[in-house]
Amino acid sequence: MARIVIAGDFGGTNLRAALVTETGEILVRHEVSTTPDASPDGALEGIGDLLMKVRDYGSELPVAASLAVAGLIDGENGRVLASPNIPAFRNLGLTLPLSERLGIPVLIANDASAAALGEFRFGAGQGTRHLLHATLGTGIGGGIVIDGRLYKGTQGLAGELGHIVLDTDGPPCGCGSRGCLEAMAGGIALGRRAQRLVESGGAPILAEIASGRSATAGDLAEAARRGEVAAIAEIREGGHIIGIGLGSIINVLNPDVVTLSGGLLGMGDFLLDPLRAGLASLAFGPAANTPVRISTLGADAGLLGAAAVALAK
Amino acid sequence: MARIVIAGDFGGTNLRAALVTETGEILVRHEVSTTPDASPDGALEGIGDLLMKVRDYGSELPVAASLAVAGLIDGENGRVLASPNIPAFRNLGLTLPLSERLGIPVLIANDASAAALGEFRFGAGQGTRHLLHATLGTGIGGGIVIDGRLYKGTQGLAGELGHIVLDTDGPPCGCGSRGCLEAMAGGIALGRRAQRLVESGGAPILAEIASGRSATAGDLAEAARRGEVAAIAEIREGGHIIGIGLGSIINVLNPDVVTLSGGLLGMGDFLLDPLRAGLASLAFGPAANTPVRISTLGADAGLLGAAAVALAK
Repeated sequence: MARIVIAGDFGGTNLRAALVTETGEILVRHEVSTTPDASPDGALEGIGDLLMKVRDYGSELPVAASLAVAGLIDGENGRVLASPNIPAFRNLGLTLPLSERLGIPVLIANDASAAALGEFRFGAGQGTRHLLHATLGTGIGGGIVIDGRLYKGTQGLAGELGHIVLDTDGPPCGCGSRGCLEAMAGGIALGRRAQRLVESGGAPILAEIASGRSATAGDLAEAARRGEVAAIAEIREGGHIIGIGLGSIINVLNPDVVTLSGGLLGMGDFLLDPLRAGLASLAFGPAANTPVRISTLGADAGLLGAAAVALAK
Repeated sequence: MARIVIAGDFGGTNLRAALVTETGEILVRHEVSTTPDASPDGALEGIGDLLMKVRDYGSELPVAASLAVAGLIDGENGRVLASPNIPAFRNLGLTLPLSERLGIPVLIANDASAAALGEFRFGAGQGTRHLLHATLGTGIGGGIVIDGRLYKGTQGLAGELGHIVLDTDGPPCGCGSRGCLEAMAGGIALGRRAQRLVESGGAPILAEIASGRSATAGDLAEAARRGEVAAIAEIREGGHIIGIGLGSIINVLNPDVVTLSGGLLGMGDFLLDPLRAGLASLAFGPAANTPVRISTLGADAGLLGAAAVALAK
C-alpha cells in the first residue's frame, strides 16, 4: 500500500499543510495566515489544528508528518532554535507535543534542507546521487543531499550556503559577519544595490518603478526587463557573485547537480547566465561542467520538500 | 586475523610505501626518490617495484593497497588526471596495472582526502562522525569524512578547500581564478607576503633571515618566533583568512570536528589563534564551537591516510 504523509510548510506569511503521497501527489491542502505575535503555546496549538485537519481528511493514517521551517533548526531534538519569520519559534520544542497530538512521528527540518530533498525526490534532482540545492530569495540558503539522503551535519545546521564569505571586507551581514554570499547577492542585498542605483541617478526606469519608496530586488528585475542597462549590470554582478559562491562549494562538495529555487530566479537569464559562467570558471576540472537546474516544483516546493523528509523517515 | 594493507604516499620528492596493520602499526617501510623526468611507464614500474618490495616483506598477503597522490584524482577509474609534483602522472591509469602486478586490489586517492580518513581512523578525528580535514602547506587542500566514510563527490574531486573564493578581487590563483583561499593564505601566498614585507623595509629580522634570496613562509615563521611584529601580523592575517574560509565551509558542512595538518602549523599560535577566532566568528550558532584539532599523525600522516583508504575497502 502506498504511504501517505503530512507535509507542513511554514513560511513568513502562511502556514501550509498538505497530505502527500509517495509519488508527490497532493491529496488535500490547507493554509492559514501566520500570527506573528502569537505566544509559543498559541503558535503550537494553531499548527496542531492545521495538521489535524489534514490528517483527518482521508481514512488512512499518514505514516509521518514533517514540517519545513525557515531558521536554525535542531532536527535531532525537534527544536526550532530561531526562526526569522515566526518570533514565537525561539528555542521551541515542536515535534514532541505535535507527535503526541497527531499520534504519528513528527519531524522538523530547515526549509532549504527540505527543499533539497524535495528536488532530489520529486523535482529537478531526480536520478542524481549527490545534490546541492540553493534557495535564492530574500536570503540565500541551501541543502545538501549525499548518497540520496539529506545531509544535516552535526547539529542539523548543514547547508547554510548564504554564509560563506566572498569578500572579507564586504558589506555587513545579518549574521554579524561581513561579505557573506547573502549579504552580497541575496534579495535584500540586491534591493540595496537597486536603491543605490536610484540614488546615483543612473537608472531612470528603475527610479520610476520604485518612485516614492525604496527600490527592491523585484524592481531591479522589472527595470532589467524594460531594458535598463544599469539594472541589467547590477543583476549580472549579483549572478556572477552567486556563481562564484556556488563554484566554491562545488570545489568542496563535487555534487552531481546544482538545483536552484527562489524568487531571484524571476530575474531569468540576466542572473542565470553570469551565475553559470562564474560557477564554471571556478569549479575544478570536470566539476566545471556540473549541471545547474532550475526547480521544477514551483509553489509546492516547500510542501513537497517536507513530504520528502517525512517519506525518508 | 588482523588485516594488513599496503600504503603508498607519493609526495613531491619521495615515494614512500609501508605495510600497515588495522590498528595503524607500520610493519615495514621503504622510500625512493621521485624521478621527475620519468616516463609514465618508467614511473609505473618504479612504483610497482616499491610496492612489491613492501608486499613481500611478510608471509601474509595484504588485502589491498592504496596510494595517496597529490593532484586531481579520478579514484573511481583509478586514474591520476594531473599531479603537480609528478608530471608523468597526467591522465595515467595507475590502479589496473599495479593491481595486476601485485595480485590485490589497488586504490588511489587524493592525498588530502586520504589524510582526512587517516585522521578519522587513527588520528585527531577518532570517535567523530563528520570530519573536515584541511592540509595547510604550500597549497591548501582537504578532505571530508561523512558518516565515517570518505566523501569523494561525483568525480572524486570533493575537498578542494583551497579553491573557495574569499575575495572576488583577490590575488590570482594557480587554478586560474582570483582570491582563492590558497592564493590568499597558502604557503606560497604567505611567502609572497613575506617577500613584500622584506621589500617594504619594515621587517629587518625577516630581511636578515632571507638575505640573498626570496623570503618564504618558513622565513616568516622564523622571524615571528624571533619577535618581529610585522611578521607576526602577516601570519595572523593569514590565520584569520584561513579561519574565515574554514568557517564558511563549516556553515555548509557542519562537521563534528576540523582537523589540521601541514607545514603552516609550524607557525604555531601566531597562525592558530586568529584561525580559531575567525572560524568561531563566522560559523553559525552552535557550530561556532566546532573543535579544531591538530593532526596527531606527524610524518606518517600520508602513509596512515593511504592505509585508512585501503582498510575501508
